[in-house]
Amino acid sequence: MILIGERINGMFKDIGKAVREHDPKPLQEWAVKQKEGGAHYLDVNTGPNSEDQTVDLPWMVKTVMEVSDLPLAIDTTDYDAMEAALIAYGKPGALINSIGCEQEKIDRVFPMAAKYQADVVCLCISKSGIPKSAEERVALAMEFVANAEVYGLQPDNLFIDPIILPVNVAQEHAVEALETIRQIKLLSNPAPLTTIGLSNVSQKTPHRPLLNRTFAVMAMTAGLDSAILDANDDMMVDAIASARVILNKDIYCDSYAKVFRQR
Amino acid sequence: MILIGERINGMFKDIGKAVREHDPKPLQEWAVKQKEGGAHYLDVNTGPNSEDQTVDLPWMVKTVMEVSDLPLAIDTTDYDAMEAALIAYGKPGALINSIGCEQEKIDRVFPMAAKYQADVVCLCISKSGIPKSAEERVALAMEFVANAEVYGLQPDNLFIDPIILPVNVAQEHAVEALETIRQIKLLSNPAPLTTIGLSNVSQKTPHRPLLNRTFAVMAMTAGLDSAILDANDDMMVDAIASARVILNKDIYCDSYAKVFRQR
Repeated sequence: MILIGERINGMFKDIGKAVREHDPKPLQEWAVKQKEGGAHYLDVNTGPNSEDQTVDLPWMVKTVMEVSDLPLAIDTTDYDAMEAALIAYGKPGALINSIGCEQEKIDRVFPMAAKYQADVVCLCISKSGIPKSAEERVALAMEFVANAEVYGLQPDNLFIDPIILPVNVAQEHAVEALETIRQIKLLSNPAPLTTIGLSNVSQKTPHRPLLNRTFAVMAMTAGLDSAILDANDDMMVDAIASARVILNKDIYCDSYAKVFRQR
Repeated sequence: MILIGERINGMFKDIGKAVREHDPKPLQEWAVKQKEGGAHYLDVNTGPNSEDQTVDLPWMVKTVMEVSDLPLAIDTTDYDAMEAALIAYGKPGALINSIGCEQEKIDRVFPMAAKYQADVVCLCISKSGIPKSAEERVALAMEFVANAEVYGLQPDNLFIDPIILPVNVAQEHAVEALETIRQIKLLSNPAPLTTIGLSNVSQKTPHRPLLNRTFAVMAMTAGLDSAILDANDDMMVDAIASARVILNKDIYCDSYAKVFRQR
């Protein structure tokens, strides 16, 4: 299970301010702290108030790289900023986060992924919106996989996100998202990877950590490979480490949760 | 999700002593307390030190019934004591807990289930032991279902338990147990119910509540209908209530965990 730490995002006040002022400290503190929590990737996102993402996003990338060797998930839908950030990153293994299933976006992003040897978060959302059924979501996943081949990417260069909506507004979606994950893992060999924007499941409910960690474990049972989440939510990381042991993906030892965080 | 409270069991010191002395108070206190925690059934088991289960078990049944109208899971492999307890129970809806998959046991217990209108916990274990693979476990489940028909029971009179072993001694079993649950739910229409002796997953580990609640949520994702568990483990019951909401089996409201406990 690949944990993508969500915290270096301008949506959070401290990071938003730091991005505006190009103050490296808050970004670098969260880079270190999230790794300690158990993050395997760090997401970087300017947030909505960046005046020029093509400047701010590469600055964020370089700032984080000064203190962390974790791979970065570069999080924007401004694909010129994405490319500038990939150039700043300057090595293989970044994660492009993200594109929806629209041909013109695929045609812009997949060649970039191939050129910079990056993986891509692919959202099961089309121009008509987020489909309700697992079948329609899997159809979008198949479209991504077919396009990957065209552009010289492997299925496991894709991190397909079935999209989870908040249970208090679209309760019937969660079970479809779980089934989508299960089916995506059967799509091809190698199978695409799966990911999810975890905290969305609990938006505006009073039980956020409980719902987040419960859904994380459920999605792992369905075959989830990674999630964008709060890597400093210790109970979440403990639950994920436990699910790994139960699924026989990590060898049990009495300190399995500690071992999981240190990897 | 049907929660079967495990606490009225002579394995626990207070209950063992109460059974020996026929002191009703500890049993009755736990009956009330487990219902408050969220139990839907109460398991009653004399424990290993009963001198005569055919006396002690009916006494336990009557003692608990004085203070609780929850259905009882009558927990013994002494089937004469089972029948005495079913007679003491004196109404439909008890749960016979349990039998392994051996023809002579089935021939003793299934007619009793039909006569007293009780359901039966059926363990995926045969004379050769606990099979490792999901396929072999499902084969045992099918044998139970086929026998049910012979004796006039419906598939959903069976609570089939795939058997979970501790992750620190048989780690590869858990994923097979999960797959067994998933396949049992596809066996017949109506499908058999599924159950599990939950706390077994964490025996002799230092992380019992964490592993128990993580496995509970994973098994629910696979289709688990019930579990024998500690109904007073609040974090477990919260996790189960959350999984119910995510699976769209209970309608979301901000107090869903409270609502779940009160049903």
